[in-house]
Amino acid sequence: MTYTITPIGTARSPYKQKFGIARQPGLVSAAKACIELNPKFTADSVRGLEDFDYVWISFIFHGVLDEGWAQMVRPPRLGGKQKMGVFATRSPHRPNHLGLSLLKLERIETGKPVRLYCSGADLLDGTPIVDIKPYIPFVESKPDAASGFVSGKPVELEVVWQENIGAENLSANTKNLISQSIAQDPRPAYQNIPERIYVMNIADYEVRFQIEENRATVIDLSPTPL
Amino acid sequence: MTYTITPIGTARSPYKQKFGIARQPGLVSAAKACIELNPKFTADSVRGLEDFDYVWISFIFHGVLDEGWAQMVRPPRLGGKQKMGVFATRSPHRPNHLGLSLLKLERIETGKPVRLYCSGADLLDGTPIVDIKPYIPFVESKPDAASGFVSGKPVELEVVWQENIGAENLSANTKNLISQSIAQDPRPAYQNIPERIYVMNIADYEVRFQIEENRATVIDLSPTPL
Repeated sequence: MTYTITPIGTARSPYKQKFGIARQPGLVSAAKACIELNPKFTADSVRGLEDFDYVWISFIFHGVLDEGWAQMVRPPRLGGKQKMGVFATRSPHRPNHLGLSLLKLERIETGKPVRLYCSGADLLDGTPIVDIKPYIPFVESKPDAASGFVSGKPVELEVVWQENIGAENLSANTKNLISQSIAQDPRPAYQNIPERIYVMNIADYEVRFQIEENRATVIDLSPTPL
Repeated sequence: MTYTITPIGTARSPYKQKFGIARQPGLVSAAKACIELNPKFTADSVRGLEDFDYVWISFIFHGVLDEGWAQMVRPPRLGGKQKMGVFATRSPHRPNHLGLSLLKLERIETGKPVRLYCSGADLLDGTPIVDIKPYIPFVESKPDAASGFVSGKPVELEVVWQENIGAENLSANTKNLISQSIAQDPRPAYQNIPERIYVMNIADYEVRFQIEENRATVIDLSPTPL
């Protein structure tokens, strides 16, 4: 027995590629995403949702569908050195490729289409959304729950912007978004090569940076080629 | 574009019918469910999961698939009088019929099949499970989040057992399960008919009870006919 899932909408996100996406929702507060519902979902379908602070977004990890899944994966939190069961992780390489993100609901626009503006997003642009549910703290807030190998927020990198690369042209939010995203240390596990230049496509920019010790330096910035 | 979802396992639950299932996970701690993974998921797939207190269970509301979905629903929390957008509720009558429950993970049995023993279940027996994820408190615990029309636990009914109906033959856990389930007030919204006898099939029993004011009385108990 299988089930057919039809997306209810699509996420518009500043993350245009997998590299650089925050590894959990809420870590990059400047990452704003807009969830655009398909036309058949009217303002009625979200009535009352504006009174909730957070929403659960269920989605398909469409960017890794062709990479399949694995019984065990190497979580970045363990430096990529240790394997954990896929169901003990939030890896996208899971059966059914279902994702779940708790996003802050900033506002709802009930036009055609209905749009949910959220912050703290960790969604790739174009992500198919398959469900939206309100967050219910008395059921879902368990501050003292044990969480295995995941203990608190990861340590952030210090982010430094090289001079004369045009950072003054960025909006405050875009600069924040880039800084916060790099601070999460998007490097693949194992990699620690100070001379290596990483390229991130984010918002409408191609950003280049290097990482040495606990400091990241943004060395170049250019509009993404169309 | 649609996606095909293949269950990864099945829930074995004391709730044999929709009527009487706790309306949220965690409300009925005595409700123990066992999630049995399909044979292709080995002990590897859950390695490390035992160190988490809670698990997210994504599932299909298979009991209402044929009832379809609606843009607006009447949440029991509003007495069934007011309509809310389906995405502002946790109603099973939603597009894609995807459910999400936070269950307490009691223990894992890594035999063939792999079994996850959970408590606080709100799952119908036979529910197809489509994903399991660990609960990460630093991302997912938002104790102060506003939650619209849902404010704290619902008030529980007092549950009284009539004498001489054989309740002494029940195990402590089964008696607890029945009491806690009835205390949640499983009546459909609008109904307030003291003489009405409600019948609940739970664990291996058929339980009859009445509700007057804030008190429920269990009036009959018999093993479920095979």
